[in-house]
Amino acid sequence: MDVACLDLEGVLVPEIWIRVAEATGIPELRLTTRDVADYDQLMRHRLDVLADRGVGLSQIQDVIAQMGPMPGACEFLDWLRQRFQVFILSDTFYEFGMPLMAQLGYPTLLCHRLEVSDDRIVGYRLRQPDGKREAVRALHALNYRVVATGDSYNDTAMLAEADAGILFRPPANVVEEFGQFPVVTDYDGLGAAFSAALAR
Amino acid sequence: MDVACLDLEGVLVPEIWIRVAEATGIPELRLTTRDVADYDQLMRHRLDVLADRGVGLSQIQDVIAQMGPMPGACEFLDWLRQRFQVFILSDTFYEFGMPLMAQLGYPTLLCHRLEVSDDRIVGYRLRQPDGKREAVRALHALNYRVVATGDSYNDTAMLAEADAGILFRPPANVVEEFGQFPVVTDYDGLGAAFSAALAR
Repeated sequence: MDVACLDLEGVLVPEIWIRVAEATGIPELRLTTRDVADYDQLMRHRLDVLADRGVGLSQIQDVIAQMGPMPGACEFLDWLRQRFQVFILSDTFYEFGMPLMAQLGYPTLLCHRLEVSDDRIVGYRLRQPDGKREAVRALHALNYRVVATGDSYNDTAMLAEADAGILFRPPANVVEEFGQFPVVTDYDGLGAAFSAALAR
Repeated sequence: MDVACLDLEGVLVPEIWIRVAEATGIPELRLTTRDVADYDQLMRHRLDVLADRGVGLSQIQDVIAQMGPMPGACEFLDWLRQRFQVFILSDTFYEFGMPLMAQLGYPTLLCHRLEVSDDRIVGYRLRQPDGKREAVRALHALNYRVVATGDSYNDTAMLAEADAGILFRPPANVVEEFGQFPVVTDYDGLGAAFSAALAR
């Protein structure tokens, strides 16, 4: 049995920060890892904006509670879990991700944690640098073959480390820069790509 | 967020081989890791008995399909998955374990594989030696704190490697030999032990 590693945002659920930007009316929060490759730079920008505008964790969690998975995501994930051991490898935080995991049937989620004081997000704690790639390495050390999918810059190290990598609905700049990975745009195509990787 | 590692048989589902022994009327299949510490010796014994008696994989899978989780196991696991990232670390095989995972809501299962030819189980492939302990080590390398529970000899290396280890309904000889681990006998007690480990 092989392992499937999935990015969360853009693959199973919408981009959390874009939804927060829309719900709060703060366009500066629209930047994601699709736009900025340096994650720490992106996060410091986000926390500065939240502090400036007085947006707390509970307000963001309210937005997330309304989001839900993308159409077809639950069915795809159920199909995948019968064929692979599934890990969600994400650069989000447990404080954001767990309400979404409840809606997806609690797949295993490896991500980061926020530092919260009195409902203010005062910082974040990366589990480790390059956490997605390290997770694939750990699974290799356990003798698993790994098939991975994601959509952004921050997924490409994971895709490269995996035995097979698949880009799901990536932006044009990622496709251009990482032409070695096949590109799929819907869950049927993603399932077919996972099945093809199994058969190799 | 911390990780919970659970043995499968004896913790969430009955001992598969004991059920197979009962259903097939072959008492020589009753031995488990509770009785024999050397796993390879135990497995060679089992495969020899199956070959002698002409018991195929499909017959064993029929028995497993009837088993189901132990009473209260699903509720306990649902409770645990809201509080920990859960891994089932088992010395069973995916061919046996996946029908049980379906009944448990597809938690992540790390175990071994059988070698099957024409419905005859001709061998088995360990994912790696000492797989339960290696899995805990891999999770430590990913900077997770690990709380583990199991009932048998083959769980004690996992319990020792974890940040906290809990024995669940162990036989007397395991309790005697591994007195350093707290012992619980029901899911309420197990939940309390996991919560206590979190709070430390």
